[in-house]
Amino acid sequence: MANAVQLPLRERKKLDTRRRIFEVASHLFVDLGVQDTTIEAIAKAANVSKPTFFNYFSGKQEVLRELMTRMDEEFVSYILHSVATGHSTQQRLQLLMTQSGQHIQRRPDMTKLLLIEGMSDLGCPTVETSRMSILNDAMATLVQRGRREGDIDTKFSIELQVQILVGGYLYGLLNWLSGDLKELDKTLQETALFLAEALAPR
Amino acid sequence: MANAVQLPLRERKKLDTRRRIFEVASHLFVDLGVQDTTIEAIAKAANVSKPTFFNYFSGKQEVLRELMTRMDEEFVSYILHSVATGHSTQQRLQLLMTQSGQHIQRRPDMTKLLLIEGMSDLGCPTVETSRMSILNDAMATLVQRGRREGDIDTKFSIELQVQILVGGYLYGLLNWLSGDLKELDKTLQETALFLAEALAPR
Repeated sequence: MANAVQLPLRERKKLDTRRRIFEVASHLFVDLGVQDTTIEAIAKAANVSKPTFFNYFSGKQEVLRELMTRMDEEFVSYILHSVATGHSTQQRLQLLMTQSGQHIQRRPDMTKLLLIEGMSDLGCPTVETSRMSILNDAMATLVQRGRREGDIDTKFSIELQVQILVGGYLYGLLNWLSGDLKELDKTLQETALFLAEALAPR
Repeated sequence: MANAVQLPLRERKKLDTRRRIFEVASHLFVDLGVQDTTIEAIAKAANVSKPTFFNYFSGKQEVLRELMTRMDEEFVSYILHSVATGHSTQQRLQLLMTQSGQHIQRRPDMTKLLLIEGMSDLGCPTVETSRMSILNDAMATLVQRGRREGDIDTKFSIELQVQILVGGYLYGLLNWLSGDLKELDKTLQETALFLAEALAPR
């Protein structure tokens, strides 16, 4: 924050404008869908000209990409936080699911939008591959920690354990997407308990 | 087959034309991508006029939808076959993964295409919801069988167990999509073993 205060007025105004366009665009995406949100509508709602929009973003896809990056970063921070503060794999998974559930419930429509758009992105393998790696790598730190501390089995590969963790979690979200928000919390907590048991040594 | 032989020549010719358009279109989808495959190109390659194409299909999306339905039906038939013939949950999951792996390796490009297009479909919730229900329902028969026979835990809900099974399997395919075909068989077999253990009572 101290740095922000020291920025020259011109730079601060630029940052404000960028932030405003970003906020307005993300709300329009949720309300109208990405497809039906025009650059004109974003510029109008942000009170800037169309050329000004293009001074800040190359197009709708860049705004969307940044929204996804932020969501990914937040989710990775939940994982790392749970690894740092939890006292067992079960507790870490429960923490993670609690934070993730709270995040989703704050803006369920945004989560739905980003899940759907993120899936469509599979058509663009490079982007999607790197998003999956980021998520998988973060989850691997949770698995490695549990393996070191003895509450995750070392008989199977870390990659496979990550696959089941991330896949089980994401598919829970997909089921929720097509159904009932009320049940999200319950689903996530049960998922955490189930996965902790599934990973434990026998 | 006996029925097919009894069809009047005109009806048989119609079926042949439909089949030819379908085959040609699916190959073009794989080679060029759905986006870049035009109706003109499909009609030309199938040796029919564009209006004739529209006598059989309302557009590219209908051809794609039929490809997906066929893949879903085949996958459901693998599940039901494994439930009917396997002697334990582990054996059933291994059978399922073997059949699924063989299916994918026969036409890996087609599988990739349908996975990617199927994911993009999430933008159209009604369709995707029903595809997920079909898959989940089939997998639930496998889970129920294992619960009755005692090698699947009854402490967790069937829905949750299906979520982990389908999610773990699909995420394995997504990882494979972004990586190496060689490893698919190994990944699927390890996934089967892991999931059978994860579902077992403690």
